[in-house]
Amino acid sequence: RIDSARLWDSLMEMAKAGPGVAGGNNRQTLTDADAEGRALFRDWCQAAGCTMGVDTMGNMFATRPGTDPDALPVYIGSHLDTQPTGGKFDGVLGVLAGLEVIRSMNDLGIRTRHPVVVTNWTNEEGARFAPAMLASGVFAGVHTQDYAYARTDLDGKRFGDELARIGWVGDETVGARRMHAMFELHIEQGPILEAEGRDIGVVTHGQGLWWLEITLTGKDAHTGSTPMKMRVNAGLGMARITERVHQIAMSHQPDAVGAVGQVNVFPNSRNVIPGKVVFTVDIRSPDQAKLDAMRAEVERAAHAVAAELGLGCEIEAVGHFDPVTFDPGLVTVVRAAAERLGFSHMDIVSGAGHDACWINRVAPTVMIMCPCKDGLSHNEAEDILPQWAAAGTDVLFHAVLETAQV
Amino acid sequence: RIDSARLWDSLMEMAKAGPGVAGGNNRQTLTDADAEGRALFRDWCQAAGCTMGVDTMGNMFATRPGTDPDALPVYIGSHLDTQPTGGKFDGVLGVLAGLEVIRSMNDLGIRTRHPVVVTNWTNEEGARFAPAMLASGVFAGVHTQDYAYARTDLDGKRFGDELARIGWVGDETVGARRMHAMFELHIEQGPILEAEGRDIGVVTHGQGLWWLEITLTGKDAHTGSTPMKMRVNAGLGMARITERVHQIAMSHQPDAVGAVGQVNVFPNSRNVIPGKVVFTVDIRSPDQAKLDAMRAEVERAAHAVAAELGLGCEIEAVGHFDPVTFDPGLVTVVRAAAERLGFSHMDIVSGAGHDACWINRVAPTVMIMCPCKDGLSHNEAEDILPQWAAAGTDVLFHAVLETAQV
Ligand SMILES: NC(=O)NCCC(=O)O
Ligand SMILES: NC(=O)NCCC(=O)O
Repeated sequence: RIDSARLWDSLMEMAKAGPGVAGGNNRQTLTDADAEGRALFRDWCQAAGCTMGVDTMGNMFATRPGTDPDALPVYIGSHLDTQPTGGKFDGVLGVLAGLEVIRSMNDLGIRTRHPVVVTNWTNEEGARFAPAMLASGVFAGVHTQDYAYARTDLDGKRFGDELARIGWVGDETVGARRMHAMFELHIEQGPILEAEGRDIGVVTHGQGLWWLEITLTGKDAHTGSTPMKMRVNAGLGMARITERVHQIAMSHQPDAVGAVGQVNVFPNSRNVIPGKVVFTVDIRSPDQAKLDAMRAEVERAAHAVAAELGLGCEIEAVGHFDPVTFDPGLVTVVRAAAERLGFSHMDIVSGAGHDACWINRVAPTVMIMCPCKDGLSHNEAEDILPQWAAAGTDVLFHAVLETAQV
Repeated sequence: RIDSARLWDSLMEMAKAGPGVAGGNNRQTLTDADAEGRALFRDWCQAAGCTMGVDTMGNMFATRPGTDPDALPVYIGSHLDTQPTGGKFDGVLGVLAGLEVIRSMNDLGIRTRHPVVVTNWTNEEGARFAPAMLASGVFAGVHTQDYAYARTDLDGKRFGDELARIGWVGDETVGARRMHAMFELHIEQGPILEAEGRDIGVVTHGQGLWWLEITLTGKDAHTGSTPMKMRVNAGLGMARITERVHQIAMSHQPDAVGAVGQVNVFPNSRNVIPGKVVFTVDIRSPDQAKLDAMRAEVERAAHAVAAELGLGCEIEAVGHFDPVTFDPGLVTVVRAAAERLGFSHMDIVSGAGHDACWINRVAPTVMIMCPCKDGLSHNEAEDILPQWAAAGTDVLFHAVLETAQV
């Protein structure tokens, strides 16, 4: 078993980098707080005897050597970046659980045939730079590095420039590494495990997603002196499309979700009819056909609303992944580990996107989930119990030991 | 007649202070650009032989003395501040037309019994600090100066601190001045005069307004992994209320308008269900009963939407004025001046709020309007023809000469 207290201490220590305003974290990718978290993680990995490699996307790889020089490494990874009002566990647990696995192997003097590598993937959240899972996406060949470097935040700052600014452009070519397997432990970020009273979610599938950035163009005009029938109100268009996104997600229940999360109104003045609104739609389903149908319905609805209000309407897909089926062999390994350790478990579909979803394209990959209180995530109040973290990490430990061959 | 070319030159010169991004202006109140515009206006007034008084709200008063030491001054005023994406004429015309009246009196060697004072009222737009017409409101005793000083912008900066920062806290007590009359020339900011082919609007009334700032509180949560039925989506609430505001305004046609102009979503991240949205509703009518009915309907609708979605809902009135009836005697003077000068004219109701609406409470007040292209205002593309500005300023000149007694 892993050392639950040490794991928890590390989680609490990491949470000091980029504290939020309500007990959580604001450690958005490529900020100074991110750099602080990275340095802490690097120091811990080196203290645990690992060598640290960094690629040109800033992905960090802490390696504990194996006994067979020809054996590909077993990877454990997730992300240290957070939402602007994020929790202390989303992503962080998966990275620090990997470190705890290595620390426990050190304590117990365990040697494995395959090396074990703990990874921090850059910009998983996609909060500052869309899309989410950007660097694991480049690793998996889904995006080019040029595309990633050119992504901009709301201030117009480029990903590539910000990565250089915080000093984390490494020398490894992204995606050059080959993997024997990759494991990601993550909090569920939803209510199912807690409601069902299970310690462990064995993640068999992941939902697919579309992020659609919609730009509506109307005409700035005076709210008081412009007659109703002369208005070209981009704000009203945004409101109608937001409602339609909700209705579309509701009409595809149970296997669908959707909402508008980001809205930027221009000029955003009390007495000006909005001349432009840029907002993003997030729609998801584990069912490919449903996901594609929803995307088509949202686009049709957006164009219809724009036409009825006389608005210009541009739609750009700024994030996408298809539904994922994780590696059946590794799923069996995880389920068996949970069983053997005496944890209650169930198969589950990930509602969120994860780095594992991209890595699954280039290596056998699986995820392990543990519950989080009230299913709450992307909220500073996100919370888990130390024993939940420990159970997940124990299953990870045993699944990794089995896969890396003791 | 006034000097049309000189007036136009001054308008174009003032537009260099705080240029916008699309040919208009961003000279928001109490910014460095505002200070630049104020200094230019002061220099011009002093060059025209006026003395400049400034009160503790930063209102500027340029005085041309009269011949009778006991006669109260005739005021001409409007504002030099603009919207974030504002035009070159909204407000500016009324101030620089006042200056042109004084320059023309100087040229023609005209003496008046009453002094003539040209005023720049601080923070008319209400874009940076709500409410609009803040300093004329303090002057008229509608707001206290303490209330005004404590108003904050989106960055949390206080009005009082920003006024001091730009160096325009004067020494006069606000509202101490007594007025014989007050005139405000303004572009219509709507389509009526242009559509009707009239040179001059004789403003008999002004619409009333409510600005309601609505704060909806839901729960930040992950957009992917939170089931639809567990969501407390403040963004969806904002969307529904925005639609209801539109419907309410439509149901009170023709004498009503309404829209949501400012929307701030928190945390404003693509994959977070908004936990909080703060947005402002602007509703107006020239009919007091209608205005009050609309306010009640908007508030009921907001609470109903909040209840159906499980959201917290707080509503704060951040701006208000009742419908206004301007001084009938001065209305007659303006109408007669337009008639005498041979301009086509019509009576009109102001759709926008103006400093004149507040000053009307403490002195006989009237407004003169001239057309603007396509009725467009609160837009950098706002435009007028030099002859439209000249016609309005000529009417102003003659009405002022009559009132100030040559
Ligand atoms: N796990 C997680 O929150 N990932 C961010 C990408 C997503 O929105 O699913
Ligand atoms: N004239 C003008 O735009 N005033 C600002 C206050 C309002 O919104 O009516």
